[in-house]
Amino acid sequence: MKIRVVGFDGDDTLWHSEIRFHVTQGEFRDLLKRHAPEADVDRRLAETEMKNLGIYGYGIKSFTLSMLETAIELTQRRIATEDLEVILGWGKRMLMEPTRLLDGVEAALRELGGRYDLVLITKGDLFDQESKLAQSGLGDVFLGVEILSEKNEASYRGVFKRRGIKPKEFVMVGNSLRSDVVPVVSLGGRAVHIPYQVTWEHEHVPEDQLPKKGWTRISTIAELPAALETI
Amino acid sequence: MKIRVVGFDGDDTLWHSEIRFHVTQGEFRDLLKRHAPEADVDRRLAETEMKNLGIYGYGIKSFTLSMLETAIELTQRRIATEDLEVILGWGKRMLMEPTRLLDGVEAALRELGGRYDLVLITKGDLFDQESKLAQSGLGDVFLGVEILSEKNEASYRGVFKRRGIKPKEFVMVGNSLRSDVVPVVSLGGRAVHIPYQVTWEHEHVPEDQLPKKGWTRISTIAELPAALETI
Repeated sequence: MKIRVVGFDGDDTLWHSEIRFHVTQGEFRDLLKRHAPEADVDRRLAETEMKNLGIYGYGIKSFTLSMLETAIELTQRRIATEDLEVILGWGKRMLMEPTRLLDGVEAALRELGGRYDLVLITKGDLFDQESKLAQSGLGDVFLGVEILSEKNEASYRGVFKRRGIKPKEFVMVGNSLRSDVVPVVSLGGRAVHIPYQVTWEHEHVPEDQLPKKGWTRISTIAELPAALETI
Repeated sequence: MKIRVVGFDGDDTLWHSEIRFHVTQGEFRDLLKRHAPEADVDRRLAETEMKNLGIYGYGIKSFTLSMLETAIELTQRRIATEDLEVILGWGKRMLMEPTRLLDGVEAALRELGGRYDLVLITKGDLFDQESKLAQSGLGDVFLGVEILSEKNEASYRGVFKRRGIKPKEFVMVGNSLRSDVVPVVSLGGRAVHIPYQVTWEHEHVPEDQLPKKGWTRISTIAELPAALETI
């Protein structure tokens, strides 16, 4: 069936996101190493984030709260209040950072907007995602915007139902195998994977759990118009 | 024009919310009084919240981050790490508290669901609002759910457009004059105000800025079916 609707992930597909977490996590590691030189800061932070995911959900505020909790626990409360204040400031800095589009995004979307219905389907913090979209200047290319708390089969099914989309006429484009490729292909849609330079560990999918067909991989969004012709 | 669609606010209209903030803020006040007996804790927290609203948006995670910032600043960094850990714990406790419906909500919604299209239109943190809706057991009475980062004329206009709603056939029901009554009436819709026992200061509207007509006030949701007949 001919493709009618193309869904786009936001973070690390249209605009840079993970790099902000990556940079801040590096600073966090350096800060905590001063108090606990032996600690595996990254592992502890990842554990705290996973433990809190069902309470906090995704996003920078959740990340900030998990950094604070990790810092307190890992130092057995020896960390100074000044340092916790610094961590609070990192969270704000991340939230206030301007949205930077990936190369080629604007041109690709303008070209595709003439041929398909484009829908932004992103997950995370509602307030932060709306700010990023507003700053991106891309608001007018999307026929619709869906900000989800989680991207899985149930939430994509909800999008299809709300928007009257048949899976067979839908392609999802994104950098996450776990969030953008696997659930969409499971529902009978198709997907295009565009890897980003940094992937959050949580979004990894083992190769043997990937669908055998229904998706393809390209290296930049500039290749997307051609890929959609052949998918 | 006959009413076709009824929008419902969630927090403090369908389920208790502000009381959680109220209780925690009381504990926060007591905690800080020990470090800074002279401080006007409530005023300082409210100032921090307002200053951060454009960065954090609404919700419990934002409130927790603002409590931490206020605690650090107000004590000039003298507050102990243990106390900040306690504040972090309050945020989690609030997020994990079960959803408690207000009296009469379920009966009123079941009755109205047979006569009107019901839409939940709530603001705040996406993840937390979805959890509350899921826990409420009310998911099936709503034809649609809109979780907005802010409730103002622009965001209601977006809801009307997305859902093909004419303002004249729409009534909004909620506890906030600022978020549920004023913007809807300005757009030509109608509203029913159901005050809650506690109102967040930010949601207050001076009497002289209230619309002269287009809305009514009832004291409990049990009165809503009758009010919709006469509005």
